Amino acid sequence: MAAVRRPTRTVYVGKVAVGGDAPIRVQSMCDTDTRDVDATVAQIHQLEEAGCELIRVAVPDRAAAKVLHRIKSRISIPLIADIHFDYELALAAIEQGVDKVRINPGNVFVKAGQKGIEAVVVAAKQAGIPLRIGVNCGSIEPRLLDKYGYPTPEAAVESALDHIRFCEALDFQNMIVSVKFSEVPNMIRAYELLSAQIDYPLHLGVTEAGTPWSGTIKSAMGIGSLLAHGIGDTIRVSLTTPNKTDEVKVAYEILKSLEIRAHGPMLTACPGCGRTEVDLLKLTADVEAALASVKTPLRVAVMGCVVNGPGEAAEADLAVVGGRGRGAIYRKGKLLRTANEDQLIPALLTEIENWKPDPEPGPLANTIPLRMRR
Amino acid sequence: MAAVRRPTRTVYVGKVAVGGDAPIRVQSMCDTDTRDVDATVAQIHQLEEAGCELIRVAVPDRAAAKVLHRIKSRISIPLIADIHFDYELALAAIEQGVDKVRINPGNVFVKAGQKGIEAVVVAAKQAGIPLRIGVNCGSIEPRLLDKYGYPTPEAAVESALDHIRFCEALDFQNMIVSVKFSEVPNMIRAYELLSAQIDYPLHLGVTEAGTPWSGTIKSAMGIGSLLAHGIGDTIRVSLTTPNKTDEVKVAYEILKSLEIRAHGPMLTACPGCGRTEVDLLKLTADVEAALASVKTPLRVAVMGCVVNGPGEAAEADLAVVGGRGRGAIYRKGKLLRTANEDQLIPALLTEIENWKPDPEPGPLANTIPLRMRR
Repeated sequence: MAAVRRPTRTVYVGKVAVGGDAPIRVQSMCDTDTRDVDATVAQIHQLEEAGCELIRVAVPDRAAAKVLHRIKSRISIPLIADIHFDYELALAAIEQGVDKVRINPGNVFVKAGQKGIEAVVVAAKQAGIPLRIGVNCGSIEPRLLDKYGYPTPEAAVESALDHIRFCEALDFQNMIVSVKFSEVPNMIRAYELLSAQIDYPLHLGVTEAGTPWSGTIKSAMGIGSLLAHGIGDTIRVSLTTPNKTDEVKVAYEILKSLEIRAHGPMLTACPGCGRTEVDLLKLTADVEAALASVKTPLRVAVMGCVVNGPGEAAEADLAVVGGRGRGAIYRKGKLLRTANEDQLIPALLTEIENWKPDPEPGPLANTIPLRMRR
Repeated sequence: MAAVRRPTRTVYVGKVAVGGDAPIRVQSMCDTDTRDVDATVAQIHQLEEAGCELIRVAVPDRAAAKVLHRIKSRISIPLIADIHFDYELALAAIEQGVDKVRINPGNVFVKAGQKGIEAVVVAAKQAGIPLRIGVNCGSIEPRLLDKYGYPTPEAAVESALDHIRFCEALDFQNMIVSVKFSEVPNMIRAYELLSAQIDYPLHLGVTEAGTPWSGTIKSAMGIGSLLAHGIGDTIRVSLTTPNKTDEVKVAYEILKSLEIRAHGPMLTACPGCGRTEVDLLKLTADVEAALASVKTPLRVAVMGCVVNGPGEAAEADLAVVGGRGRGAIYRKGKLLRTANEDQLIPALLTEIENWKPDPEPGPLANTIPLRMRR
């Protein structure tokens, strides 16, 4: 069962609700040159197809800001402009009609002081769009670094709260907040501290997480640990990868594994041991391949023997339990049929095709998104 | 900074301490046929080489039990026998000199009642070895399934506590405990509940986690979330994989990322965005490849631009920051040198070769294992 989600306000990014009862949103960021509109739009379309719900692009200069409207007109998910030092680029992005602006307050503040941030807040308010107060461990204001001696979770949270209070003093509450660290323990602690003090939706991420392998592990730990405790409203998995859709796939795997959102079948498989009497690696790989194009949100288990097999299979919608040359298909723990090893996958696929949820639905067969439950 | 570790007793598995102040131990389980001694020993040697500190083998029958001494005599890490239905196999394994026995109390109890478990406890006590009370969501006793209606975290914890109390009544306290689920939220909740009630060392794992990709994500979330909150004394990542050493690699990546144990360099890398002016994917891949054989526990960062680069680089022992055709190497935020793009990796390797820890060591340059700190 998933954790109780901490209550947050609902903020709209374009037509996409973030926070409150809205699903935990999956977002990503383009790694194309924003000025290359065709390449950027093509990447956004790939990400949309993979399930990305919000997309951010870097706006490093005026030329990038000036093409934002053209990008937005060709995509169907909300567009977010990522702004660092130059607040005037935020103003230009807002003029271009973006759906949200992320400002790194440390960087904006260092360059232009409060007046830069104030100008952005006033423009966002007029345009009716939210801002993300995106604090990053690498760019905390010098004053706070002096105070804490190091970019600590406490320093990041103080930075975020300072800027939130500044925006609130301008009667602006249309905010999403992040306090990213590249170190997982600091990231977890910063969000835990922040979450106890504000009810703005939180954007979770481990910054500079790394390669697809280690970045996935760090993101799963940091984002997963917080979501498992009810914290977080939108997530971005950052990976240094040639396939940006990896970020979205990992994000959904995190949400699926926490039973927060369904996104196609969820596969469990036993690791095999000295009891295994079936070619488990082949069977699992075959099942994973067979499920790749299935959209039904089912829980499917592959088990190599009868020790844990039938018991754990009881918690799966469908389970394939291997045996000596023969195997069995279970539906919620009830034996449906046995089959020879080479007929197990076709038998499983037939059961998936004919799948109708029970009147009382299984754990992942609910409407999408699943409500958080205890 | 890592979380404060919850205090637990120290239990010895062979000469390896688990719990208390001991490092969080990394373990794995063979997927060979235990009766095939050569194959099993060969796999254990591979796992040892990868850093595995405790190894478990399945004991499905008497023939498997009878070769345990031969396996143990050829390996240098403690050997654990995994027992399910038949308590007499546990007795046979103890006679063979194994260093620990894992019993699945649900399965043993169903077959032989309390007398089966009592016989194992008495034998373990005489032999001076610990038991793992290894509760698994797939094999909780019928009485508790009736009571809770479903294999819930509460049911698993009650099962574990019942068996712990039974052992304690026999004046046996030499235990390690696990309550594994294949669903990550249930797994996290079960260990959180259990950890609040006992001080025996906890063995963490997500059971039947799945393939290297999704199983890694689930294990990182479940194990990582608990360790990040100070819970857990030994971990096993279960993966359905042809390369069992994957389990050990993922386990150490979890421990490294949580700053709990050092195990070679830790790489962070920014994901690249529209600001990137260097071939970041190539640079990151080159750095990762160059670090593969480095044993020094350094924190190395690869950054694609000057927005987050120098700031986040300040937290790394060594950082490579890419620029337009040229890049820079930083040591703890201090610029060491600039170099042309094609000279960056050799420059980094030179710095690593010449690396001497500061008098005041960096976050990962401590003795191994790192003590848990707040």
